[in-house]
Amino acid sequence: MNQNISKKTTENQFQITHKSGKARVGILKTKSGTIETPFFMPVVTKATGKHITTDDYKKLGTKCEAKAVICNSLLLSLRPGTELMKKVGGIHKFMNFSGVVFTDCGGFQASSSFFELKTKNGIHFRSPYDNKKIILTPKLAMKNQWEINSDVAMMLDDMTPYNITEEEARIAMENTHRWGLQSLEEHKKLREANNKQKIEERQLIFGISQGNFYPKLREESAKFLSEHEFDGFAIGGVAIGEPSKYMYEAVDNSIPFLPENKPRYVMGLGSPVDILEMIGKGVDCFDSIYPTQNARHSSIFTSKGKIYLDKGRYAEDFTPIEKTCGCHTCQNYTKAYLYHLTKIGEPAGHRLKSIHNQYFLQELIRKAKEAIKKDKYEEFLNDFKKEFVIKKKLNLNQ
Amino acid sequence: MNQNISKKTTENQFQITHKSGKARVGILKTKSGTIETPFFMPVVTKATGKHITTDDYKKLGTKCEAKAVICNSLLLSLRPGTELMKKVGGIHKFMNFSGVVFTDCGGFQASSSFFELKTKNGIHFRSPYDNKKIILTPKLAMKNQWEINSDVAMMLDDMTPYNITEEEARIAMENTHRWGLQSLEEHKKLREANNKQKIEERQLIFGISQGNFYPKLREESAKFLSEHEFDGFAIGGVAIGEPSKYMYEAVDNSIPFLPENKPRYVMGLGSPVDILEMIGKGVDCFDSIYPTQNARHSSIFTSKGKIYLDKGRYAEDFTPIEKTCGCHTCQNYTKAYLYHLTKIGEPAGHRLKSIHNQYFLQELIRKAKEAIKKDKYEEFLNDFKKEFVIKKKLNLNQ
Repeated sequence: MNQNISKKTTENQFQITHKSGKARVGILKTKSGTIETPFFMPVVTKATGKHITTDDYKKLGTKCEAKAVICNSLLLSLRPGTELMKKVGGIHKFMNFSGVVFTDCGGFQASSSFFELKTKNGIHFRSPYDNKKIILTPKLAMKNQWEINSDVAMMLDDMTPYNITEEEARIAMENTHRWGLQSLEEHKKLREANNKQKIEERQLIFGISQGNFYPKLREESAKFLSEHEFDGFAIGGVAIGEPSKYMYEAVDNSIPFLPENKPRYVMGLGSPVDILEMIGKGVDCFDSIYPTQNARHSSIFTSKGKIYLDKGRYAEDFTPIEKTCGCHTCQNYTKAYLYHLTKIGEPAGHRLKSIHNQYFLQELIRKAKEAIKKDKYEEFLNDFKKEFVIKKKLNLNQ
Repeated sequence: MNQNISKKTTENQFQITHKSGKARVGILKTKSGTIETPFFMPVVTKATGKHITTDDYKKLGTKCEAKAVICNSLLLSLRPGTELMKKVGGIHKFMNFSGVVFTDCGGFQASSSFFELKTKNGIHFRSPYDNKKIILTPKLAMKNQWEINSDVAMMLDDMTPYNITEEEARIAMENTHRWGLQSLEEHKKLREANNKQKIEERQLIFGISQGNFYPKLREESAKFLSEHEFDGFAIGGVAIGEPSKYMYEAVDNSIPFLPENKPRYVMGLGSPVDILEMIGKGVDCFDSIYPTQNARHSSIFTSKGKIYLDKGRYAEDFTPIEKTCGCHTCQNYTKAYLYHLTKIGEPAGHRLKSIHNQYFLQELIRKAKEAIKKDKYEEFLNDFKKEFVIKKKLNLNQ
């Protein structure tokens, strides 16, 4: 079998419309409508961003919105709870967002303070709200996501930290594979029980390949998952603090073994250059807290690299972050004003700075798609890096 | 001389257009344009609200904005500083607000933790930013406000707490009167030096009557200030923690001695019923942190009284705060969602709840003006209180 073609292609849930080198533009069908790939998802962990809400994501600026977001199903299952989600009719209605909603399974919380232990069956947590014990199994992860009613559910994976042995990485990979099959099985049951079989009306399920930073394991994991009927494939366990080089290698060791005709999703990646590089490798979906976390620390994206709005040099700069930027913040406020909000510690500043960084990424990807459609992606990527990376270095020396 | 007619009426800077009992609608001319009275000013102390910024105030909901706000000139003079204000061209440009901007003198900060002492010449503070000594004199208060370039400056007053002796209240009143005359004198000098004499282009200056809760002092203070060429008159030193009865008495003992043909401003008042009662007494301007402070504590205004959005009864209430409310928050989110944001401690919730409370007050005053124009103010006030006060009591027993 050709590893690059998934077994099930009948439903046409993902169609590649343009290519430029390995970079591609496609259309992903979900029950909330179609979305053009590549796209970046702001993280709305608990059905909200930090300081920024879905009303902002629907209007980041002139003709710019985030068309997809990702929530955390484990945390949402604890508060407000899946019973409430069922009553309200799902996450879209609850947080008033009609775009595409992904849910993460909660496996990522294995790196959080409320993780207890892992067994072959799942992950043990203590609720951060009431310390109640939760055993997150593939079955529970699927039930949570089904009841939250997201458009795309993620299988339960066993994510590991950087700097573990190959043996430890293999055990985690094997957990991941077993949990992946169990997730798929459970998802199938839910689809059948609820009579939701068609692409237009059912939740999609994405696999997550692991393998830590061991090339052979990455290959093995991508190959194994590709054999099964997932609607898309994530590369998990990267951008968790490892040197950038290892992150790129892990992705390079995975992509060739994932199906060409299914969406590819590198989880947790949010820096402008990383996103564009990954698009160049054929990645279609992204999510990260990076733009908002940076914004809260006054680290702001511009076409000439990041600037730090808490620096005195901006105290009397009465121009917007970027004159050509169409974001709500740049349309309304100057760097001097944002500097002032930062210096007086006003939380509203976090919102305004987050809006800019999110807009920047959405616009960047819009331009990347344009370049792919014109088959000029490599040129676009190089031009961007020349401005962003080189100018950034100059900035740092100022 | 008739105490109810100010000496200077030539400039026609304030015109009463409608009356209903003592309640009135008028037009106040400022250098940023005209504004219809009565109006309520959100407090943007340091050129921003807490969690809510001027972009929100410009669009609180369908066809609703705050047309005036008030800043604190003492705090702004410390950060970002008046030199910066001069460079940017004033507070309106700095915070991107083209409506009417009042500035308070800073006298109110005499009740803050950075107050040191009062002398006959002014108030001694320590900067909350760097502990530097500041002596706030009438001259400095006027300079600060002139350089901030607000539309309406407030004279420096000596505000006193509730529960002082008549002798102490008299000393503070005498300080207030002396500082008032000095403020006026200084303001005149600034107008002349800058060749800004016409109403359309110059900053206005309002007097602040004091007198604590002693009826005779209130009368004396209102009469004294009315003799001088202020553009409007505030009643200061109320709503500072005293029983409501005393607050109403202090206002009742002041208003008859303030000119009929000048705007009247009760400082620091923000509860819906108090505002409407005061409008009924002929008050034209209001400001308070009350709506936003309440919002941050999940205490939300509705036509049937305040509700508390942190109560479990709202956990599954999938309706907006009020179905008929046109505010941005009610147009987008349900009580269940706002309850969720409150329970997870998400600061973005403060913004959404603040938007609702501010919209509620702006809309309430819009309706009050309509009632005055139809000469049905008393009926309107009684109808509102019946719903708001009585239903509120029922709510509390639930």
